[in-house]
Amino acid sequence: MNQSTEQKFWALLKQQSAYEEAIGLMAWDMRTKAPKKGIDNRSEVIGILAEKVHHIQTSEEISKYIEELKPKADDSKLRSALEDAEETFNRTNKIPAQLYKEFVTLQSSSESKWAEAKENGNFKKFQPYLEELVRYNQRFAELWGYKNHIYDALLHNYEPGVTVKQLDQVFPKVRDALTKLLNNVQLADAAPDPSLLQGHFPKQRQEQFSKEILKKMCYDFDAGRLDETIHPFAIGLNRNDVRVTTKYDEKDFRTAVFGTIHEGGHALYEQNIDPELSFTPLATGTSMGIHESQSLFWENFIARSREFWENHYPLFQSFAPERFKQIALDDFFFAVNEVKPSLIRIEADELTYCLHIMVRYELEKALISGEIKVKHLPELWNEKMKAYLGIVPHNDSVGVLQDIHWAGGDFGYFPSYALGYMYAAQFDAAMRKDIDVAGAVRSGDFQLIKEWLTKHIHQFGKTKKPLMIVKDVTGDGLNPDYLISYLTNKYKGIYQF
Amino acid sequence: MNQSTEQKFWALLKQQSAYEEAIGLMAWDMRTKAPKKGIDNRSEVIGILAEKVHHIQTSEEISKYIEELKPKADDSKLRSALEDAEETFNRTNKIPAQLYKEFVTLQSSSESKWAEAKENGNFKKFQPYLEELVRYNQRFAELWGYKNHIYDALLHNYEPGVTVKQLDQVFPKVRDALTKLLNNVQLADAAPDPSLLQGHFPKQRQEQFSKEILKKMCYDFDAGRLDETIHPFAIGLNRNDVRVTTKYDEKDFRTAVFGTIHEGGHALYEQNIDPELSFTPLATGTSMGIHESQSLFWENFIARSREFWENHYPLFQSFAPERFKQIALDDFFFAVNEVKPSLIRIEADELTYCLHIMVRYELEKALISGEIKVKHLPELWNEKMKAYLGIVPHNDSVGVLQDIHWAGGDFGYFPSYALGYMYAAQFDAAMRKDIDVAGAVRSGDFQLIKEWLTKHIHQFGKTKKPLMIVKDVTGDGLNPDYLISYLTNKYKGIYQF
Repeated sequence: MNQSTEQKFWALLKQQSAYEEAIGLMAWDMRTKAPKKGIDNRSEVIGILAEKVHHIQTSEEISKYIEELKPKADDSKLRSALEDAEETFNRTNKIPAQLYKEFVTLQSSSESKWAEAKENGNFKKFQPYLEELVRYNQRFAELWGYKNHIYDALLHNYEPGVTVKQLDQVFPKVRDALTKLLNNVQLADAAPDPSLLQGHFPKQRQEQFSKEILKKMCYDFDAGRLDETIHPFAIGLNRNDVRVTTKYDEKDFRTAVFGTIHEGGHALYEQNIDPELSFTPLATGTSMGIHESQSLFWENFIARSREFWENHYPLFQSFAPERFKQIALDDFFFAVNEVKPSLIRIEADELTYCLHIMVRYELEKALISGEIKVKHLPELWNEKMKAYLGIVPHNDSVGVLQDIHWAGGDFGYFPSYALGYMYAAQFDAAMRKDIDVAGAVRSGDFQLIKEWLTKHIHQFGKTKKPLMIVKDVTGDGLNPDYLISYLTNKYKGIYQF
Repeated sequence: MNQSTEQKFWALLKQQSAYEEAIGLMAWDMRTKAPKKGIDNRSEVIGILAEKVHHIQTSEEISKYIEELKPKADDSKLRSALEDAEETFNRTNKIPAQLYKEFVTLQSSSESKWAEAKENGNFKKFQPYLEELVRYNQRFAELWGYKNHIYDALLHNYEPGVTVKQLDQVFPKVRDALTKLLNNVQLADAAPDPSLLQGHFPKQRQEQFSKEILKKMCYDFDAGRLDETIHPFAIGLNRNDVRVTTKYDEKDFRTAVFGTIHEGGHALYEQNIDPELSFTPLATGTSMGIHESQSLFWENFIARSREFWENHYPLFQSFAPERFKQIALDDFFFAVNEVKPSLIRIEADELTYCLHIMVRYELEKALISGEIKVKHLPELWNEKMKAYLGIVPHNDSVGVLQDIHWAGGDFGYFPSYALGYMYAAQFDAAMRKDIDVAGAVRSGDFQLIKEWLTKHIHQFGKTKKPLMIVKDVTGDGLNPDYLISYLTNKYKGIYQF
């Protein structure tokens, strides 16, 4: 029997997806289980399979199928798959193989130089590498092309359809509102006592609590598992095998509890994608920002809410040291919602987090467009930290050198974190119009919430672009008011100003 | 730069080996960690990657490289790799794709029919499937070809170079000697008390003990790990990632202790293959039988020896229930070496084990050559069990239906188990000429033994065929006297006859 072109197209995507699933499992394994001596060999294997994926994505064969099928594609799944494949084909083929190879080499030497520079707080040592990385990103951006701003071409990798023009309309509003809000918090009379939260939390009990909460979130353990790692992540191998990882700090339960819920939010997204999309590149989250909206929604909008702890504090107490029985819910709740400007992004609370992103977005946009120079970064970084967060790093290790992203050559990535917050606030507001979220959280029954998310967001996978989901769910475009008003209301209530 | 044909040949083998490593990890994962709902998807992915391996093995491309390189191959690694690739190419291409596809379908329906038949002790239901499986194996054997006996063509899949002629010279000697030995054991006055070994053995303590023993065996935990599974196995993903699995029975420590040591023996083999062979099909054990010789050597010749327990009994006691402190070493040692004819192969002791294999070998050889019919199997099975082991199954579930091998279409596989015992005895005797094995075991320092095995067996991977290793190590061919004399001496000593 002869296969139709459409069948051949799906078969090729299925092959690609098989490679990707194998790569995904190997990556999970390297970060959770693999013995250290096997890592080099495994990395080579991943490289070989990644090369196969690249080969399919840029092949004459796929290009031929796209050409042939596009004019007559009448169902939406096929259209989405063709668009996705065509875009990948075009973007990937625009970068000459030699140029990309140089970039990969640069990436890996830069990452180790960065680690060294960070260790010693020595930005100068890293500066020439960063200059090169910026130049490569500029060349890629030119090759990919853009309409208005060169940085748009990079943004597109993480948040397709979002532009500098849009960000520049909303980010300054978020920045100014949060800076003002932070100021109010700092002037407030009320203050939490985070020392309440200290204690010894045996790993095993944290693990049990984490599993209980994941189950309540409707994370399906028959289609996933929870493991330990150093840098937590969630990974969807297929919708029936979506794994969560977490880290246990025996001195601070917040790392695992909020971390697991965060990754659980990512995992729920991947577990609830329409099975029709399986074995296609559409069977994953649609963008970094939408993915982050799902993890942040669960971590903050749900698990840092008062309703959540009204229900789950007794469960937490049953796993926590005895003395938590003496700590009142209100004091506990206030302590886990402490706002405190931090030098380090990944330690930031939900109120100040986006300010860290604003620092990075403004700087990397200006770097890529050539408005500022790499050598001025530390100084500019410190100025912005002072202006937005009111604190200044005492050295570059806890300043401009703290994140790996730029060292890995990733520019255009940071905005997705702030977009994730904004999307989450917009989705949260829309959800509260439809269903009784507070009631569900208070009763500890998240089924309704999970169903709402599946219906409005998860099921679509990559068939809808980020802003299309926002539009369909909220009837609105990207709108900073939701995040601002959520944070204002919440912290006004907590800090009583 | 243009690649030479040899470089292209190695690159192709490296690709194949990358697929195989990915498949291996996925298989390990399915049997240890994977969530149940993800299994179907994962199986499809494995199928797709296995198809890629098959495609390489049977490609025009590899055939061209073989043709071109064979006449001028002057180093032994290249020669071995060419021979291996050529043999795979020839054998695989001899089976028409359609015929093989039918066989795969038959295999999977047969396995489920077999499970059903075993459950109900109903051989008749399974009979037509087994008849078909025999016919397919006969056709494959004819297509592959053979010199003397049709069964040789099947043997070749598991023990290349070993023939019916050789087996028929040695197996009857083993069979008759063991039957006689069993008889002597059963007539002896001395008897062990296996009830001594009963108790509650918490999984965690068994795991700790298992890990201690693996470390002492020089199993490298930086290049491997130990996990739990239902049907234990060891798997070499690459020489720096060789994983052991085991099963913990909290009522019987022997399952995990001897099982882990057995799998550890397999793992040591894979960990100590010459790194030069990495990323080629030569980087694995040379045959089923030689592999089994390594696991059996450690499980029986080492870990069921008196010297072993002289050293390790105190360590065992420290992990075992308190009352083992009252059990004398001699009584313990006798109990773990109890000889007792069992209906079930996988429950057999080291003395009777090979008798189970003789039953199977004689029957499957006669089936394939057409001397006997499938419908007579249960009757013939029971006759042979009576004759060799002195016991008769009360129903076919614990008789002819007990093993999955035939239901999976695997004929020619069983002899490797008995060959493993014979090889192990030959290697053991050779080793004792070179080094003080008993002294090493008694002192609990296995480094010398591991080095001997690496030097004489492990390092070669698949570059030496099984009988070549036997010849090089022992100066002898396949010789049953070593196994017979090892078992006779050991059990004469223990049972005092």
